[in-house]
Amino acid sequence: MYLLMFAFASIGWVSAFTNCEESTVYGTAYKALFEHLGLNKTDVPKTHQLPYFMDPPTEVYVDLYVTSIIEVNEKAQSLSTQVKMMTAWINNMEWQYDQFCGIDAVPATKDMFWTPDIIIKESIKTEFGTKESPYLQLLWWDLSVSVDILALTTACKMDLYRFPFDTQICNITLHSAVHSIDELTIDPFSDNKNITHESKEFFQAQGEWELLSIDASKSNATLLDYLQDLLIYKITIKRRPLLYVINIIIPVFFFLVLDVMSFFIDASGADKLSFKVTLLLSISVLLLILNDTLPSTANAIPLIGIYCSVIFSLIGFSILETILVSFLMAKGAEKRSVENTAAVSGRDDIVRDLHNSPDSVRDQNGMQRSLCWIRVARIIDVTFLVLYLMTIIVFLTMLGKSWVSY
Amino acid sequence: MYLLMFAFASIGWVSAFTNCEESTVYGTAYKALFEHLGLNKTDVPKTHQLPYFMDPPTEVYVDLYVTSIIEVNEKAQSLSTQVKMMTAWINNMEWQYDQFCGIDAVPATKDMFWTPDIIIKESIKTEFGTKESPYLQLLWWDLSVSVDILALTTACKMDLYRFPFDTQICNITLHSAVHSIDELTIDPFSDNKNITHESKEFFQAQGEWELLSIDASKSNATLLDYLQDLLIYKITIKRRPLLYVINIIIPVFFFLVLDVMSFFIDASGADKLSFKVTLLLSISVLLLILNDTLPSTANAIPLIGIYCSVIFSLIGFSILETILVSFLMAKGAEKRSVENTAAVSGRDDIVRDLHNSPDSVRDQNGMQRSLCWIRVARIIDVTFLVLYLMTIIVFLTMLGKSWVSY
Amino acid sequence: MYLLMFAFASIGWVSAFTNCEESTVYGTAYKALFEHLGLNKTDVPKTHQLPYFMDPPTEVYVDLYVTSIIEVNEKAQSLSTQVKMMTAWINNMEWQYDQFCGIDAVPATKDMFWTPDIIIKESIKTEFGTKESPYLQLLWWDLSVSVDILALTTACKMDLYRFPFDTQICNITLHSAVHSIDELTIDPFSDNKNITHESKEFFQAQGEWELLSIDASKSNATLLDYLQDLLIYKITIKRRPLLYVINIIIPVFFFLVLDVMSFFIDASGADKLSFKVTLLLSISVLLLILNDTLPSTANAIPLIGIYCSVIFSLIGFSILETILVSFLMAKGAEKRSVENTAAVSGRDDIVRDLHNSPDSVRDQNGMQRSLCWIRVARIIDVTFLVLYLMTIIVFLTMLGKSWVSY
Amino acid sequence: MYLLMFAFASIGWVSAFTNCEESTVYGTAYKALFEHLGLNKTDVPKTHQLPYFMDPPTEVYVDLYVTSIIEVNEKAQSLSTQVKMMTAWINNMEWQYDQFCGIDAVPATKDMFWTPDIIIKESIKTEFGTKESPYLQLLWWDLSVSVDILALTTACKMDLYRFPFDTQICNITLHSAVHSIDELTIDPFSDNKNITHESKEFFQAQGEWELLSIDASKSNATLLDYLQDLLIYKITIKRRPLLYVINIIIPVFFFLVLDVMSFFIDASGADKLSFKVTLLLSISVLLLILNDTLPSTANAIPLIGIYCSVIFSLIGFSILETILVSFLMAKGAEKRSVENTAAVSGRDDIVRDLHNSPDSVRDQNGMQRSLCWIRVARIIDVTFLVLYLMTIIVFLTMLGKSWVSY
Amino acid sequence: MYLLMFAFASIGWVSAFTNCEESTVYGTAYKALFEHLGLNKTDVPKTHQLPYFMDPPTEVYVDLYVTSIIEVNEKAQSLSTQVKMMTAWINNMEWQYDQFCGIDAVPATKDMFWTPDIIIKESIKTEFGTKESPYLQLLWWDLSVSVDILALTTACKMDLYRFPFDTQICNITLHSAVHSIDELTIDPFSDNKNITHESKEFFQAQGEWELLSIDASKSNATLLDYLQDLLIYKITIKRRPLLYVINIIIPVFFFLVLDVMSFFIDASGADKLSFKVTLLLSISVLLLILNDTLPSTANAIPLIGIYCSVIFSLIGFSILETILVSFLMAKGAEKRSVENTAAVSGRDDIVRDLHNSPDSVRDQNGMQRSLCWIRVARIIDVTFLVLYLMTIIVFLTMLGKSWVSY
Repeated sequence: MYLLMFAFASIGWVSAFTNCEESTVYGTAYKALFEHLGLNKTDVPKTHQLPYFMDPPTEVYVDLYVTSIIEVNEKAQSLSTQVKMMTAWINNMEWQYDQFCGIDAVPATKDMFWTPDIIIKESIKTEFGTKESPYLQLLWWDLSVSVDILALTTACKMDLYRFPFDTQICNITLHSAVHSIDELTIDPFSDNKNITHESKEFFQAQGEWELLSIDASKSNATLLDYLQDLLIYKITIKRRPLLYVINIIIPVFFFLVLDVMSFFIDASGADKLSFKVTLLLSISVLLLILNDTLPSTANAIPLIGIYCSVIFSLIGFSILETILVSFLMAKGAEKRSVENTAAVSGRDDIVRDLHNSPDSVRDQNGMQRSLCWIRVARIIDVTFLVLYLMTIIVFLTMLGKSWVSY
Repeated sequence: MYLLMFAFASIGWVSAFTNCEESTVYGTAYKALFEHLGLNKTDVPKTHQLPYFMDPPTEVYVDLYVTSIIEVNEKAQSLSTQVKMMTAWINNMEWQYDQFCGIDAVPATKDMFWTPDIIIKESIKTEFGTKESPYLQLLWWDLSVSVDILALTTACKMDLYRFPFDTQICNITLHSAVHSIDELTIDPFSDNKNITHESKEFFQAQGEWELLSIDASKSNATLLDYLQDLLIYKITIKRRPLLYVINIIIPVFFFLVLDVMSFFIDASGADKLSFKVTLLLSISVLLLILNDTLPSTANAIPLIGIYCSVIFSLIGFSILETILVSFLMAKGAEKRSVENTAAVSGRDDIVRDLHNSPDSVRDQNGMQRSLCWIRVARIIDVTFLVLYLMTIIVFLTMLGKSWVSY
Repeated sequence: MYLLMFAFASIGWVSAFTNCEESTVYGTAYKALFEHLGLNKTDVPKTHQLPYFMDPPTEVYVDLYVTSIIEVNEKAQSLSTQVKMMTAWINNMEWQYDQFCGIDAVPATKDMFWTPDIIIKESIKTEFGTKESPYLQLLWWDLSVSVDILALTTACKMDLYRFPFDTQICNITLHSAVHSIDELTIDPFSDNKNITHESKEFFQAQGEWELLSIDASKSNATLLDYLQDLLIYKITIKRRPLLYVINIIIPVFFFLVLDVMSFFIDASGADKLSFKVTLLLSISVLLLILNDTLPSTANAIPLIGIYCSVIFSLIGFSILETILVSFLMAKGAEKRSVENTAAVSGRDDIVRDLHNSPDSVRDQNGMQRSLCWIRVARIIDVTFLVLYLMTIIVFLTMLGKSWVSY
Repeated sequence: MYLLMFAFASIGWVSAFTNCEESTVYGTAYKALFEHLGLNKTDVPKTHQLPYFMDPPTEVYVDLYVTSIIEVNEKAQSLSTQVKMMTAWINNMEWQYDQFCGIDAVPATKDMFWTPDIIIKESIKTEFGTKESPYLQLLWWDLSVSVDILALTTACKMDLYRFPFDTQICNITLHSAVHSIDELTIDPFSDNKNITHESKEFFQAQGEWELLSIDASKSNATLLDYLQDLLIYKITIKRRPLLYVINIIIPVFFFLVLDVMSFFIDASGADKLSFKVTLLLSISVLLLILNDTLPSTANAIPLIGIYCSVIFSLIGFSILETILVSFLMAKGAEKRSVENTAAVSGRDDIVRDLHNSPDSVRDQNGMQRSLCWIRVARIIDVTFLVLYLMTIIVFLTMLGKSWVSY
Repeated sequence: MYLLMFAFASIGWVSAFTNCEESTVYGTAYKALFEHLGLNKTDVPKTHQLPYFMDPPTEVYVDLYVTSIIEVNEKAQSLSTQVKMMTAWINNMEWQYDQFCGIDAVPATKDMFWTPDIIIKESIKTEFGTKESPYLQLLWWDLSVSVDILALTTACKMDLYRFPFDTQICNITLHSAVHSIDELTIDPFSDNKNITHESKEFFQAQGEWELLSIDASKSNATLLDYLQDLLIYKITIKRRPLLYVINIIIPVFFFLVLDVMSFFIDASGADKLSFKVTLLLSISVLLLILNDTLPSTANAIPLIGIYCSVIFSLIGFSILETILVSFLMAKGAEKRSVENTAAVSGRDDIVRDLHNSPDSVRDQNGMQRSLCWIRVARIIDVTFLVLYLMTIIVFLTMLGKSWVSY
């Protein structure tokens, strides 16, 4: 299978024009080769067949380089790439290159030959990135070579659990449309290292995704009752998370910190509640933008969704606690103020009834009860703060662990 | 109808090369078979006919696998899928495979034959997902097989009443463009269980929708005055609701809880109203995002729309109530403060008129009236709270019921 | 013109295979018919002409069913529909069906015949919804029938004055690309009732729009100096307004009610202004979302635009009034407090100047003036409220009228 | 050049069937004409040439009607239109219509003839709006006529300085792909008035843009070293600004008015700052929506951008002023309150040191200094208000002038 | 290589019709030339070859003018342009123009000849902007010229570090699909200055990007084991930053200034915190809009992202500081008020225990401690302000430097 490749390397196309210095001679040789190969025919055969002159299966060699990642659509679970695909296969047209002025490769029109009917299983859309070349290259030792630049959109099962620290593996599966494994086999031309290396070299975009590796592997599938040969390219890409960290994770964390710190805002002040509700509003806006990028999945909700909605809920609960505490405070204050007004009115009436000793006793009782309310409120406040902090620490620790060491 | 399928299974394509060990012999056999089938003709007939050699109608067998759900557009009421469609039909080209080195299948150019003109009734857009294969496979016993990967966009009547807990049923109806039922019939190749099972196995996306089942059924329709055979694939898909629950239902519910709790905020404080208006603003933002995903329908407004807008209205009414109560409170307080200032000024004027007993009586009357206003406000507040809670409980119970047990 | 249709109904394609029980005989008959019609020719004529064997003009019959409304784009003023178009025309190939085993219809390749060059005047984009069928059906009595499923995008002059309670009429005008009325006429095949009825039956989408009716009518237009026959399909569709009512009209109305009610919020409190500004902000957000759905038009601004922007302005004016009133209040209060502080400082200075009787007189004067300011503020407040309510009632009444009874 | 047009008008296609009453005769005449013109040939020539039988250059006449403006994309600086393009050119096929039953026009397949290779210089995308007609019309006196409905997307240099009161001029330049002016000339068929008039009549959309006029003019350009004939259509369109006025200009102006009025809100109240910040937030939201519709340009920032950002800055400065004034106020108040508390504590300590006369002097000094701070704050406030109002008036006047009388 | 170009200039196509005054003679000459060149053949050869009559490699000359920048997509890292591409190559058809009435250029159908199979390496999508011309121009001295208007979408590695003050360099690399450098070379036709100059003259859009220069350079790459000739066009474009400055940079800077100024708002007032949180909310909205335009990259986060998120964090920290300071203030105030109430209650109890001297001592101690808290708060406040201002100045200076002098 790989023998072919080594053959390439060893021979190395000695494009020597040694014996054909004059251009006219070269032109004649070129013409002669064309006629020798039967490429000057005016009536092209309409029906192409598999090259049946040799032992089946016909061997097709493919190299697929991912030259650009155009778009990764998490909602539609599709991957748009620009790929460069080199296809080579054995034909029955060979010549002695030293007999034809050293011409070792000749271009020919695609229409004249059988070309492999390779289709991509995951493809939702296959378009030629640039205009399709009508030519293929014939090499002197039986090989036809065709190069295409394609804009592919392929379906790709994505796992967004660890978004935006995720790594996705998308397959591009090549197989013949109708031929069984007995008739046609598909093998990689270069080895995996080379493909990954060359893809990275060709790589033209510097967007959100980093190309980690491309791995070719063989498999087969059943069509009707016979087997088909599959060539699977595993494209491993890694998201660059920095902007999401800066734009979502850090702001939401900041809002959480502000919410924790808001415990130190004076509970009686009007600011505290509106401050907290504004935080809630800010997070709910962020939550909805998250809604735009992530699809709805049942199995495992992405960690960033958990992160945002748990922090949303935490702030929500802390608002409820604030309302409760300020309610208790208000109750206490109200009681006290009732006492006070009573006291004040008492002072007003000081002329009339000076000996109102039970009143002052009630006064002190009320004071105590009111202080009791306030004390309860304070205890609740502190207890909640401690629990709140502990919950946050536990939650963030667990989340961080599953985010990193999944 | 299904006999054919069993025939497949029993024979099983014995791809035996037993009697043709040498490759040259195989090549010759291949060539001979090509000539036997007339596939090496240079002039392809331009006009293809229905295979009229046998009893009409011509039987066409179809298998349709949904391999990916690309997009479900609720606004446009369309479904975009990637499907793998296998079409098989009876031709009149058979051979004895033991006479041709055991070759039991031969690829041939599509142009040379009649192919069934099957169109999809609901299709808004039909594109080849990958480049169209120019070949079809001929089997030794009269069958032509063609496999296509299509990117389909089909119209689909969606019922969004239970969004996001909805299950949609979309049809893909196959029928001939011009042939009547007397000329062409379309039948499923595999049975329903198999199609559903294989579709799920092929399924490449893990997006918002879960494929429940694919069911093939037969029907017919009238074109002009004659009948046409229809093959209907019912695709049942279920939405994965989790993200919508987390992003819309829970936040809105939280806002409602916060609104209920806000009854315990001190009515006289400046916070209460701005707190509630911020809740209203938050929900109205959520309401408008809902507007983006759901289309406007007259018959039955989606439950989530009712959920959001009823909670919006509830919070609106509770704001009105808060204004009313604080107005009454203010009236009471104002009265009292007028009395008080009167009292204070009274104290100032204490030197001039000390014997102002009617004043103090008026004072107490005013006090009572003022307290009366405040008492009315308190009664309204509590009554509203009770009614409000009851309304919420009844509404959420009814909504939950119709959401679950529709 | 409609005679043809009745002819259809009366004959009714007696697909009787009475005299041809055996399948082989049927196959032979089919073959014979093919040869009789000259469909087995290998060289297809390249130049097709109008069927000139009979009296001009050639009559073409069309039926257009709207099977789905995919999108209505108010900004681009375009309508995207899926239509099923049946075209029938007279050819010169007839046969006696009783001579050919009762075969009354034969499919044939489109390439072999002249097909009517009907184009759609309003079309911005015409695509085949599903793959184009290469066949047409020939009927025994001179008729060719072709059925296509098209995805049309047509320009449509929309009147959005009554949005979202609007009804739009879009035309699909069919005419020949080059033929004059002397050469080719286009007529509807079925009558209007039938088309509307069948369209509604086929109708696959349940989106924002309801199909009311499809009416075919005839007209003609001038190309260069000769007349062309036009067939105009008037498609009347009605918007389902419920979601817009729930998402825009009711919330905005609620904001207006809240603004009116905010008159009862205590003017001195800090809440009132921020409450009203939040309402203004909410409406301005809604206003901008409106901006996304509606195009800018000069002639008649849509009623919903008037509705939103008038309510926006009303709330704006009520804020200005609130500022004015609270300014007057503050002036009054300030005066009073100046007097009071004067009074207080007076008390402080009580030791120095005890006989400051003019001061107390000034005190009372200031009090009166201050009370005067407050009284003016109150009068303005009440007057504005009355005028405000009247304006709202008049405006909403007029708007409602023109919305309903346009 | 225009002679041709008048020739049209004078002759007027007398479609008289006077001498050919019977339909069979007409059919024969039609057939005879087809043969006379050589349209019944089975082998179509593959290579079409310029009609070289007459004096070069070949004259091509074009009429271009803009029938719909689909989209104007300010960001991409492109214009999408639906146009109806009539092309007419001189051929060498003429006949005497009285010899052929008065048949004065004959449709023929486009493939058979040379057609002008006219391309559009600005075109980014040219698509057939409806399916391309395969026919052209031959007129008896040497003219070929072809009619196409195109969906064009053309690049258009837009000046958005006066947005939304802008008028744009977009060119559609027609020229031959390869022919020089010596070989092919392009001229308008109708005159400008007629084109504008008919375009307006055909006009199907009633969207954001109003078609003012279409003017054809001639020019030429150099390709390599020889001249090419250009036909330039200047399409003048005017934006309908009403919705932008209602949705952006008026709300922003309202926010400015509210900001001016907020000077009358009591500076000590908590409302003033949050009121102003909310205004700033509202405008910054509007600013960002503006960002969506307008592209970034260096030369001249659109007036609406200046309008929004200047008002944004004005409100920003007025917030800074408010902070400054309230800081001074607070300083004054603080001083006073320090004095007061001193005074109060003084009173408390009244028993201990009654003869604290320097204290009361310091008291008065402090009072004066405090009042001085407040007086400075008031002066700053009033001065700023006056300057602020003047700036606004001057700015709005200048802006309005350059908006209207550009 | 460039000799050819000078040849052009010197000869200059003397389109002289001097010896052929009569049109009939000209027509005859044209016809004769057609026959001389063999362009009137009916059977077009199906297989085109490289022009092999001369010394290899075949020289192809290309000129590429960027006539419009349609879109720059930073997320997808792609550039959409409208380009005008002129391709010229040597053929073997020459004639003496003085023998053919001075006809020096002849149009011919493209199908008849070999055309260079030049593809664009970076292309994601190549479409004809306008309909493809089926003709090419033949010049009398061996040259074929073809002109195309293309709508290209090419991958382009963008560095957004200095956004919106960035300059991008996008490559358009032309090379043959299959030919080696020994068979085909690609060279620029005009020199760089001319291309840039003409591109700018053709330039139709006035959008966000300014075309700086187009530079052609030569390179080569390896396909299999032989070399291919590359022609690389470097397109340098510069963003026009004004709108981004006005819409993002200035508002965010304004928010920072307002935050700094908010230190002068009275800490005890309710306004300060809500004022600052509103600023935070505004910036977080701006941050998210930034998220829409910029892709996530790991290497170097764009400066504008740093700018926004650092200012976000600064305001966040200043809020934390405000909470801390107001907490300390409140603690102090609380202590004092406790003392005061104690004092007040002390006064109430003045009758019972008049000789409570330790109390007044405690009073003074408490007072001191309370004042101590407040003093600490003030010191923190001032220190933070100084540090804050210094941080801002240092940060903005460094940022400005790296923005400008990168």
